[in-house]
Amino acid sequence: MGLAPGSVVFTGNRKVDNVLIHYVQYNATQLVEKVLDSHEQCILDPAHDHKVDWYDIRGMHDVELINFVGETFSIHPLIQEAFVHTSQRPNFDEFENGIFITLKALSFDTSERKVHKEHVAIFFNNGFVLTAQETESDLFSSVRERISLEKGRIRKRGADYLAYALIDAIVDHYYVVLEEIEDVIESVEEQMITTQEYSGKSEIHHLKKELLVLRKAISPLREAISRFAKTENELVNDSSKVYVRDLYEHTVQIMDTVESYRDIMNGLQDLFISEVSFKMNKVMQLLTLISAVFIPLTFLAGIYGMNFQNMPELNYKYGYFILLGVMLILFAAILVFFRRKKWL
Amino acid sequence: MGLAPGSVVFTGNRKVDNVLIHYVQYNATQLVEKVLDSHEQCILDPAHDHKVDWYDIRGMHDVELINFVGETFSIHPLIQEAFVHTSQRPNFDEFENGIFITLKALSFDTSERKVHKEHVAIFFNNGFVLTAQETESDLFSSVRERISLEKGRIRKRGADYLAYALIDAIVDHYYVVLEEIEDVIESVEEQMITTQEYSGKSEIHHLKKELLVLRKAISPLREAISRFAKTENELVNDSSKVYVRDLYEHTVQIMDTVESYRDIMNGLQDLFISEVSFKMNKVMQLLTLISAVFIPLTFLAGIYGMNFQNMPELNYKYGYFILLGVMLILFAAILVFFRRKKWL
Amino acid sequence: MGLAPGSVVFTGNRKVDNVLIHYVQYNATQLVEKVLDSHEQCILDPAHDHKVDWYDIRGMHDVELINFVGETFSIHPLIQEAFVHTSQRPNFDEFENGIFITLKALSFDTSERKVHKEHVAIFFNNGFVLTAQETESDLFSSVRERISLEKGRIRKRGADYLAYALIDAIVDHYYVVLEEIEDVIESVEEQMITTQEYSGKSEIHHLKKELLVLRKAISPLREAISRFAKTENELVNDSSKVYVRDLYEHTVQIMDTVESYRDIMNGLQDLFISEVSFKMNKVMQLLTLISAVFIPLTFLAGIYGMNFQNMPELNYKYGYFILLGVMLILFAAILVFFRRKKWL
Amino acid sequence: MGLAPGSVVFTGNRKVDNVLIHYVQYNATQLVEKVLDSHEQCILDPAHDHKVDWYDIRGMHDVELINFVGETFSIHPLIQEAFVHTSQRPNFDEFENGIFITLKALSFDTSERKVHKEHVAIFFNNGFVLTAQETESDLFSSVRERISLEKGRIRKRGADYLAYALIDAIVDHYYVVLEEIEDVIESVEEQMITTQEYSGKSEIHHLKKELLVLRKAISPLREAISRFAKTENELVNDSSKVYVRDLYEHTVQIMDTVESYRDIMNGLQDLFISEVSFKMNKVMQLLTLISAVFIPLTFLAGIYGMNFQNMPELNYKYGYFILLGVMLILFAAILVFFRRKKWL
Amino acid sequence: MGLAPGSVVFTGNRKVDNVLIHYVQYNATQLVEKVLDSHEQCILDPAHDHKVDWYDIRGMHDVELINFVGETFSIHPLIQEAFVHTSQRPNFDEFENGIFITLKALSFDTSERKVHKEHVAIFFNNGFVLTAQETESDLFSSVRERISLEKGRIRKRGADYLAYALIDAIVDHYYVVLEEIEDVIESVEEQMITTQEYSGKSEIHHLKKELLVLRKAISPLREAISRFAKTENELVNDSSKVYVRDLYEHTVQIMDTVESYRDIMNGLQDLFISEVSFKMNKVMQLLTLISAVFIPLTFLAGIYGMNFQNMPELNYKYGYFILLGVMLILFAAILVFFRRKKWL
Repeated sequence: MGLAPGSVVFTGNRKVDNVLIHYVQYNATQLVEKVLDSHEQCILDPAHDHKVDWYDIRGMHDVELINFVGETFSIHPLIQEAFVHTSQRPNFDEFENGIFITLKALSFDTSERKVHKEHVAIFFNNGFVLTAQETESDLFSSVRERISLEKGRIRKRGADYLAYALIDAIVDHYYVVLEEIEDVIESVEEQMITTQEYSGKSEIHHLKKELLVLRKAISPLREAISRFAKTENELVNDSSKVYVRDLYEHTVQIMDTVESYRDIMNGLQDLFISEVSFKMNKVMQLLTLISAVFIPLTFLAGIYGMNFQNMPELNYKYGYFILLGVMLILFAAILVFFRRKKWL
Repeated sequence: MGLAPGSVVFTGNRKVDNVLIHYVQYNATQLVEKVLDSHEQCILDPAHDHKVDWYDIRGMHDVELINFVGETFSIHPLIQEAFVHTSQRPNFDEFENGIFITLKALSFDTSERKVHKEHVAIFFNNGFVLTAQETESDLFSSVRERISLEKGRIRKRGADYLAYALIDAIVDHYYVVLEEIEDVIESVEEQMITTQEYSGKSEIHHLKKELLVLRKAISPLREAISRFAKTENELVNDSSKVYVRDLYEHTVQIMDTVESYRDIMNGLQDLFISEVSFKMNKVMQLLTLISAVFIPLTFLAGIYGMNFQNMPELNYKYGYFILLGVMLILFAAILVFFRRKKWL
Repeated sequence: MGLAPGSVVFTGNRKVDNVLIHYVQYNATQLVEKVLDSHEQCILDPAHDHKVDWYDIRGMHDVELINFVGETFSIHPLIQEAFVHTSQRPNFDEFENGIFITLKALSFDTSERKVHKEHVAIFFNNGFVLTAQETESDLFSSVRERISLEKGRIRKRGADYLAYALIDAIVDHYYVVLEEIEDVIESVEEQMITTQEYSGKSEIHHLKKELLVLRKAISPLREAISRFAKTENELVNDSSKVYVRDLYEHTVQIMDTVESYRDIMNGLQDLFISEVSFKMNKVMQLLTLISAVFIPLTFLAGIYGMNFQNMPELNYKYGYFILLGVMLILFAAILVFFRRKKWL
Repeated sequence: MGLAPGSVVFTGNRKVDNVLIHYVQYNATQLVEKVLDSHEQCILDPAHDHKVDWYDIRGMHDVELINFVGETFSIHPLIQEAFVHTSQRPNFDEFENGIFITLKALSFDTSERKVHKEHVAIFFNNGFVLTAQETESDLFSSVRERISLEKGRIRKRGADYLAYALIDAIVDHYYVVLEEIEDVIESVEEQMITTQEYSGKSEIHHLKKELLVLRKAISPLREAISRFAKTENELVNDSSKVYVRDLYEHTVQIMDTVESYRDIMNGLQDLFISEVSFKMNKVMQLLTLISAVFIPLTFLAGIYGMNFQNMPELNYKYGYFILLGVMLILFAAILVFFRRKKWL
Repeated sequence: MGLAPGSVVFTGNRKVDNVLIHYVQYNATQLVEKVLDSHEQCILDPAHDHKVDWYDIRGMHDVELINFVGETFSIHPLIQEAFVHTSQRPNFDEFENGIFITLKALSFDTSERKVHKEHVAIFFNNGFVLTAQETESDLFSSVRERISLEKGRIRKRGADYLAYALIDAIVDHYYVVLEEIEDVIESVEEQMITTQEYSGKSEIHHLKKELLVLRKAISPLREAISRFAKTENELVNDSSKVYVRDLYEHTVQIMDTVESYRDIMNGLQDLFISEVSFKMNKVMQLLTLISAVFIPLTFLAGIYGMNFQNMPELNYKYGYFILLGVMLILFAAILVFFRRKKWL
């Protein structure tokens, strides 16, 4: 609040004890990997000969480190700020000396049915990639593996392809999240149709909120990747753009799926509400039916409970039994009538 | 997950035992048809003299075959991946050496009231068309017939027109699906208005979900065909574009119809809910009415069931019969009153 | 289904026994009118000297005739197909040798409260206009009259103005349809507020569906006319475009009106549902009230119907009458209380 | 219906007995005002020396006059038609020899809570402005006053600025209408929260309809003024466009306000429905509660009203009083229980 | 109403007793601060040597002062009008001699749960910035502090950066407002799920209205800043535009958040209504259940309260006790049945 724009301030709450920098340098034939743990170490020789330098910072609270790295590689203050601004919305920005992309890594906690977001920032220019993740656990392990295989396509390409591959790895995981959510939706759907439990209400509301979280993370990413695919920037090769366009299609598909889940959830909620009210009314109807059956019978009993001196029926020998018979017949007739009307 | 982009991995679940390639080569005067069942066979002489080569792969799980074909005709790895990626969204993509289109063949199972999707991939460049279908049953039989007629327009035109004709054959079938769904909607509508059954609820929800499936298949196709119609690519002739524009109009019309079905289904759901609640309240009203009729009468009987020593009416000779008469009149009066109020 | 695109197949169901062609040729000074009933007759001398030739086909099932005319005036196969494809959506298409427009003539059957659609196709190029209507009854009589007046503006202008005038005649009739629907909506509205009838439900649903029909006919027409107004085609004069722009404004206004009717119908439905449920609850409340009044009184009567030996009140001389008085007072008090609470 | 486009036909229903033309001619230093009441009078010397001629016609049914004026100043037939076509939608149109704008003057009748529309047409070209209003009462009095002040900005500017000023005067009045509607909405809102009356239902529906009327008048005006602000027409000075842009901002703001009123009305309706159903259920609950209290007590009384020979309690000396005590305690206990549950 | 456009009229209602002008002049090395309280004082030497002159007017009702300042610095009359027109919508406008931006400073009163708006106007050109706030309390204190620090980036930049920094300070505060509203929403959400109170209804309606206020302030600002970021005006440096683009991203994110809050509030309202109706029905069900239990028992008692002479059971020695037993068993059986059905 009230700070100069470009002030690097950490706004998240998940911290890593020891911020480490995972460093990889590769080209088609060579590969160097290092883990750096102090500021001074990270000024390494820049990459020559079509090499790519990738610095991956794990943990975002070490503002000083980001500042140091930012100054060293002359990164714009606004980018430095965005690197640690964990509530930043996914975005694609072109600066004079590089391209900057932020996005959210998502995961779904199936037990709590909660979507977790992790802020990821990627900056790259010619032969240089700088990334930051919130936690020590690596979101990019699949990319790292592909780099370690000498014949992988990634080894023959530049920083733009690496940046693409990193985003692709995260977007790929969205499919997993969507599948897990679909499982939850289907289980809710099944429960609703088969059981008489009323416990689903807040669950539906909760799931709808989680879908909003998802949409807030994915919708701006779609725009960001669209701009990535259309950029005229010379840092992005045409051969890489084919892949980014493909990635864009994936985000559109994911977004469509999220929207259709929201439609389904809205439908489920309507179904649920009408179902609950239907079942409850059904119960009320049954209860009211009991009254409707016994009240006329009670009236009959009331008649013969009167104390008039001259009530001939009372003196009939089988009057009582005849009345009981009448009541029984009436009772049966009402039941049959109700059953015919399908109220019972 | 975590694989390099362009990795050809089968993601569907419908498999064909024996993947066959149906091969057709034709021009205005000549026609060759073959069925190939091993990899080696499919390297045939390319088409000369304005001939068109059409390879139609039935079954998608044979990743190796796709790879082999892809390498043979130098198809981009991303296209190879998309050929077998059955959950891919309909799309139109231009690559350096060809145009790639994916779409969904739809069919409607009227007994289960379920929409089935089949993934279809079409790649074409100058004189060469490669298609893939999920199952052995042929989606393109109508096109095949037209090719076999020597004087058909299709025989005089190139690969772009064939690609168009294949898509057109699938889109044409959407009209059938829509009609079948319309029948279901109308039967649901009629049932709702004429019967007292309450079974429609989950059916409406189900139909709305199927319409979502439809929309997810058709909406991106509309965009894809729009891009097909507007492409500047020299692989697509101007004379073919007239047809593609016409096809575009069809997809727009289909999409409009799907949207109006969704509107109708929403209206039906509202109607259903209000109808159900109306009927149920009607029943409750009738039951409550029974109570409202008998409770005052029971009160009267209760009065004369009291044991006060001095109750003159009890000693009247015809007291009992007078009371019975009064009750009967009251009963009739209440009924008349209720009927006048249209509650009965 | 499965036919080659451009195959001329009649898809409608309203047929005319004898397909006639109404032929008009005019310029500022001359006018020729003929009715042709065989194929051969329709090859007439083309119009010279700024004359306009208008062929108006009444009836669409005579595919052969359409084919013959199409070949004669070298009309594109896709247009021939669209001429008889009665479920075609309104559209504007430019071909090499002419402009093709389809639209729907609408009429409202006030007794059945149903919107009827008639397919109309218009093709024109320099000095030549070809139209087709589904029935023998003439949709263009007003235009025909204007042509028959020698000093009308239409006589001095070309085929483009005639095409415009024909569309304008049909769009003008939409206003009539809208007014008739508005009358129906207002009568429904009034009925709902003044009467206690519950019959309006399916009527509202029905009207909403008819509005969907309207929207499906008008919304694409709006786009089509917008493209007509903006076309760069030299077949359309700038002086005619002023009129087409005006026509476009009309379609926008009509579309707006349809949308506002849909809003009103949705509002009416909400009002109706809440009104019905309100009235029904009001009845339930009244019935429940009867129980609530008599049950305490019945309890009192029950007390003095008990057979305890020692119940002093039973022996009081006026005990019975005192109790009756108490009951009456209680009854009145409850009624007053309910009336104060505005429940009665 | 069925008339040639450009036919000048009056379609409104509000008429003025005597159509007058108010004529003003001014420049920075001179001012002439006249009221003309016959056709011949209105051919006045055209304005020279940067003068502006403004003809303001009050009343629209004198089609002949419009025709006469139209011919005199060579106005396009379509404009002549639109001048008297009172149901025309707000629009901005550029013709060869001038610019034509139609809009709606709005007023709100607070007693009937009804929005009244008046059709206004403005045509201008270099130094000439022609306007038409439906009634004799002047919508432009504020502009007239500003013109009469010699030092006002309007005197130094041309016909385009006058046209702008006239529209601005009408749009300014929209704010008054909005404020009056806001007052009504707030009074409805307050009534709903504080009173138990159920009379608000049709009122909300009515207000929503009036807001639709407003939207239909303002939404196309916004577009029209946007086109006015962006026109390349040399009849509109750049210095005037600054003002038109400002006017555009006002219409956007007004439109936003109308939309937010619609949102509020929808919210109010939901609130109202739930409020009504809540109150009604509350009453039902209370009534049902009375039954629930007395039915168990009546059962107890029924027990001791039985005629078994051997019922020891009946012979206890204080049996009756003990039972009365038990009933009283039970009654109190039930009441306390209900009150604890907050049902009472 | 009815005034000439550009008339400077104060339309707000919050006034400051003494309108003061806070004046700051700075460049990278020098800084002058003054508070001016009379009109004459504010004609200061314009800034030379890359200095920036910032006049900050606190209070808007002193129309004369605005007029005076406007004339002195030759500001367009429309801008002068907008400076004091507090109900103006956020906007970005380019004039010949400067750029004009209006926006709303927002704050949230957590006790009343009300959003307060303050009108802010910013005009700048080369080296000159004029701002106006409604109250004496400074919205720009954070910017003022940064200016007072000699090494801040702001000191080295021009008027465009200052304008940006001022807007940024206000937009930054929107995040605080959003957080406070989120707290309220969450507390409402929790209350609804945990308590049985029905007090939330008007609260939800109220919050939805406040979110509309927010949206009306932020949505046009987003557009305004988008135009700021894209302006070709030479008054805005490219190096500043990077920051404005960043600011634009923030407004998009804020707007997204507001929209998702609206979604959540709508969901909460649905949840609330269904929750209330569910709880109320639950109560009704319980009450009806009491009737359903006791009415059959009362019927039994009624039977044995009849006065038939021949009712054998009455003479059984333990008849009474047997019946009591039967009733107890029946009572228990019904309760068990209801509990099994989960109605109790």
